[in-house]
Amino acid sequence: MADFMEIIKGRRSIRRYEEREIPENVLNEVLEAIRWAPSWANTQCWEAIVVRNSTIKQKLQETLAPGNPATKAMVGAPVVITLCGKLQSSGYEKGQATTKLGDWFMFDIGLATQNLCLAAHALNLGTVIIGSFSHDRAKEILQAPEGYEVVAMIPVGYPAREAKQSHRRQISEFVHYDRF
Amino acid sequence: MADFMEIIKGRRSIRRYEEREIPENVLNEVLEAIRWAPSWANTQCWEAIVVRNSTIKQKLQETLAPGNPATKAMVGAPVVITLCGKLQSSGYEKGQATTKLGDWFMFDIGLATQNLCLAAHALNLGTVIIGSFSHDRAKEILQAPEGYEVVAMIPVGYPAREAKQSHRRQISEFVHYDRF
Repeated sequence: MADFMEIIKGRRSIRRYEEREIPENVLNEVLEAIRWAPSWANTQCWEAIVVRNSTIKQKLQETLAPGNPATKAMVGAPVVITLCGKLQSSGYEKGQATTKLGDWFMFDIGLATQNLCLAAHALNLGTVIIGSFSHDRAKEILQAPEGYEVVAMIPVGYPAREAKQSHRRQISEFVHYDRF
Repeated sequence: MADFMEIIKGRRSIRRYEEREIPENVLNEVLEAIRWAPSWANTQCWEAIVVRNSTIKQKLQETLAPGNPATKAMVGAPVVITLCGKLQSSGYEKGQATTKLGDWFMFDIGLATQNLCLAAHALNLGTVIIGSFSHDRAKEILQAPEGYEVVAMIPVGYPAREAKQSHRRQISEFVHYDRF
């Protein structure tokens, strides 16, 4: 499965895009990838908002922390997919968190986000995951209801240039055997 | 990229495995997939513990919540990969959380977990993500230091039988346009 590992290893944060639109059928594959993510007891605690409206993209851009390197990406990308998590669902039973780690929506949205980014890359699209912004302000702009949090905003578009090589620790630096 | 979408759609939770060991080079590809996951500002806040020792697998099995359908998987799989998250790193700056969502280790471990599960599936291996267990007890058994949490335990092995088809909401049921 060399091809698959190339997708895993070749995915990079892409912050500059061509002006080209994303065809409907291609965008649909990206949404299918979110759809098939796993989640705690199959709670599927995600909602996705496909933002194409430029006024809304601009308003969302203003929620980013100053100096965020993905600021231009928020309006430069033809589409921004925002992923929302349903609260008190993943990791919950009868209204109570079942583990010390509390609400698992962040973990599950992480699983779905990675499906999104990998599928996009397999379709020659670039993405960047934005987590540093005012989540309350974004929630207002997107009119997300109580009981949900906007977790991540992910600009998606055809890369305007090659991505830089990224650094990672070696396997020997983060892998342990039998004990930490 | 039909093949890639087959991996996304074909991954299932696998809880019964053949007795066959996982060759070193195959396991290494799974670890490479974790390695190349994205993370908040490239913090790489994960540590992975490859558990093969049967006594440790058995002790970890005892940390599962009663009735967890993955109980047998914990000792039936030749390898259990446990993913630990470093605290106060992802989403943090100068010791302070930068967003209302606090520590992003759960999100980042979610990204890495999905890389692991997809790569395993691409290599004909089955996985199941276990989150429902005593995280404190697992931490003790694995001797994880302060400042880390054991987040998920993921048995990995060659599937003993075909996985059941799983249900998901339709795209129209979780996708919104421009606003929630």
